[in-house]
Amino acid sequence: MPRSPFDWIDEQAVRRERAGLVRTLRPRPVDSALLDLAGNDYLGLTRRPEVTEGAAGAARRWGGGATGSRLVTGTTELHGQLERELADFCGFEAALVFSSGYTANLAALTALSDRDSLIVSDAGNHASIVDGCRLSRAGTTVVPHAEPEAVRKTLDAHDGRALVVTDSVFSVDGDAAPLAGFAEACREHGAALVVDDAHGLGVLGDGGRGALHAAGLAGADGVVATLTLSKSLGSQGGAVLGPAKVVEHLVNTARTFIFDTGLAPAAVGAALAGLRLLRQEPELAGRARAVAAELHRRLTAEGLRAVRPDAAVVSVQAPSPEAAVRWAADCREGGLAVGCFRPPSVPDGVSRLRLTARADLTRDQIDAAVETILRTAPTG
Amino acid sequence: MPRSPFDWIDEQAVRRERAGLVRTLRPRPVDSALLDLAGNDYLGLTRRPEVTEGAAGAARRWGGGATGSRLVTGTTELHGQLERELADFCGFEAALVFSSGYTANLAALTALSDRDSLIVSDAGNHASIVDGCRLSRAGTTVVPHAEPEAVRKTLDAHDGRALVVTDSVFSVDGDAAPLAGFAEACREHGAALVVDDAHGLGVLGDGGRGALHAAGLAGADGVVATLTLSKSLGSQGGAVLGPAKVVEHLVNTARTFIFDTGLAPAAVGAALAGLRLLRQEPELAGRARAVAAELHRRLTAEGLRAVRPDAAVVSVQAPSPEAAVRWAADCREGGLAVGCFRPPSVPDGVSRLRLTARADLTRDQIDAAVETILRTAPTG
Ligand SMILES: Cc1ncc(COP(=O)(O)O)c(C=O)c1O
Ligand SMILES: Cc1ncc(COP(=O)(O)O)c(C=O)c1O
Repeated sequence: MPRSPFDWIDEQAVRRERAGLVRTLRPRPVDSALLDLAGNDYLGLTRRPEVTEGAAGAARRWGGGATGSRLVTGTTELHGQLERELADFCGFEAALVFSSGYTANLAALTALSDRDSLIVSDAGNHASIVDGCRLSRAGTTVVPHAEPEAVRKTLDAHDGRALVVTDSVFSVDGDAAPLAGFAEACREHGAALVVDDAHGLGVLGDGGRGALHAAGLAGADGVVATLTLSKSLGSQGGAVLGPAKVVEHLVNTARTFIFDTGLAPAAVGAALAGLRLLRQEPELAGRARAVAAELHRRLTAEGLRAVRPDAAVVSVQAPSPEAAVRWAADCREGGLAVGCFRPPSVPDGVSRLRLTARADLTRDQIDAAVETILRTAPTG
Repeated sequence: MPRSPFDWIDEQAVRRERAGLVRTLRPRPVDSALLDLAGNDYLGLTRRPEVTEGAAGAARRWGGGATGSRLVTGTTELHGQLERELADFCGFEAALVFSSGYTANLAALTALSDRDSLIVSDAGNHASIVDGCRLSRAGTTVVPHAEPEAVRKTLDAHDGRALVVTDSVFSVDGDAAPLAGFAEACREHGAALVVDDAHGLGVLGDGGRGALHAAGLAGADGVVATLTLSKSLGSQGGAVLGPAKVVEHLVNTARTFIFDTGLAPAAVGAALAGLRLLRQEPELAGRARAVAAELHRRLTAEGLRAVRPDAAVVSVQAPSPEAAVRWAADCREGGLAVGCFRPPSVPDGVSRLRLTARADLTRDQIDAAVETILRTAPTG
């Protein structure tokens, strides 16, 4: 008599329970009273009427879904428009929109490498990049976090096609990648540079044009950006930006583009509206950075430990995983939602609270957030 | 002086051009006059006012995006509602919603297998299943298409955890998987069965409850369904349905769930509205199947070759890839959009036109489609 096919799940669940590592979903109500410093809505656009009306209007005009692969029926003129405006805003020749940032990363990494390629990947890269490396047929070398010299040495040791991939802003500490150094190493070796600007778009660069624009690398030879439409732009979806021939190549070869239904019109409409708001209100990016700097300054002044934020993510260290969980729960109790990073999500083993410095926070909200975090901070 | 990092793309583009295999995007206007038999909008729900208003209302109420991972801020009560109604409708204990059907398959396959598992995968499975197998750490054996005996033999030869994965309805020929035979082989070996019901939901089973419901396997021990919200339900997104403990396991371990932004509220709202329409109009499923049967009957009566459709996909053989491309282009010229499958997308090398039998096609539209396909059919 064979066992039930999922008995092993019970054993894992028990182990998770014992280790205090069970994750559960907490559906939020529409009128949540919590002050949200946990999400990635950096510019506060997701609730702006322009964005929600952008979504609503696109659904009414184009339908609830895209109805098929982008190559069959899933490309509307609205998709084309978003791609043109994204490329233009960020300073690239062309753009291609995906159903998520996750699938955009899978596409870029699998389509721009082959069996004989080397992918050099920063140790702090996002899960979707890690999965893209695994899904590609390329060899992958993971290099120590934010070290151009390690990238250079790894490229030196490889003969043949190579691609370097990095987040522009890393989730764990909110630090920015040394893009100039990475680009220099790539140039020396004729390697491509793929930068995931999920946390840079809308926050870094002139008017929020992103980390590559800020580094003077937007549109440069051999440089590709991947984006998500789900953070600063207040919508859902992803994109790859680069030379037109890279976009054509993805259209022809990227499996998560060819075999996936196109992004829903409502998400396209919301992202387009978000992008246009960003153009109209170029001060939003600087405002998000200023809020982050203020949070960092006021929290570290009281003795908390945090890396100086390069974008809109402020990451505050906690003495232990248990303390981090309790701290986040106490903040919540005090009306403030914050993120909480614990092992194994933190490579150095240090647990952290993660705060999002939204551009639309008011003075009172910033004061309340600082007060709550300090009041609930673990002692010692 | 190193070459430009993307020179190799030019070489591949030239080869593609020479082989006549270049794919290009054709953005559609909002008022396209084409009769659409190319998309996957099986029930014609994507333009129904209930669905578009479901999207619009959800965007207005909940925002343009979900703002974060489902585990942080990305789960709204609306997500919970869709999950409960999906599970209830299809006859499973629990459901978990993803940003796409693609990422739902990646999640199910990676989270339900490990280094010591075997995945047995049908040769006709969708690209997202193939990628899920590759991304998992399990060994994968690809078995000949639709052969329970091959599955049984492969399981016989393996000692340890195993999982069998199959599409419920295959894209290339529109044929249904022998689910009862697969389930029997799984039961004998204590293996799990994962069925991608992307093309079965809304079309097969009582009132469109799907292929597993039709086979008496919904909610059975060891059985998991993956779905897409982007076809019959007229929206975007995906879902995994199964025992509650499987869903809890995915919440805790599936990377494309944990590290991806939640599905946008508008897509959740559209899918929920589509699902409710399906409940209110249980005749839609039978209608889609009847249209498919009629298309098949009338086209084969005139000498065209096609496998008898098990769901709403009618796949008509063409004498060559070139003839298939010309045929599809001639249909388009005649006002009819159809899909076109060519190598390498067809494992047997036979090119095909792919027709979607939408439940909302009128008698005149069916007549026009049949007339156009026959008039433009390659001779000989
Ligand atoms: C750095 C990074 N890349 C990619 C993604 C994936 O984007 P999306 O959630 O839009 O799929 C995320 C977050 O979710 C991210 O933080
Ligand atoms: C069988 C099958 N599974 C999964 C998918 C992926 O679903 P989605 O497009 O919603 O990501 C598709 C189609 O796109 C499909 O045909």
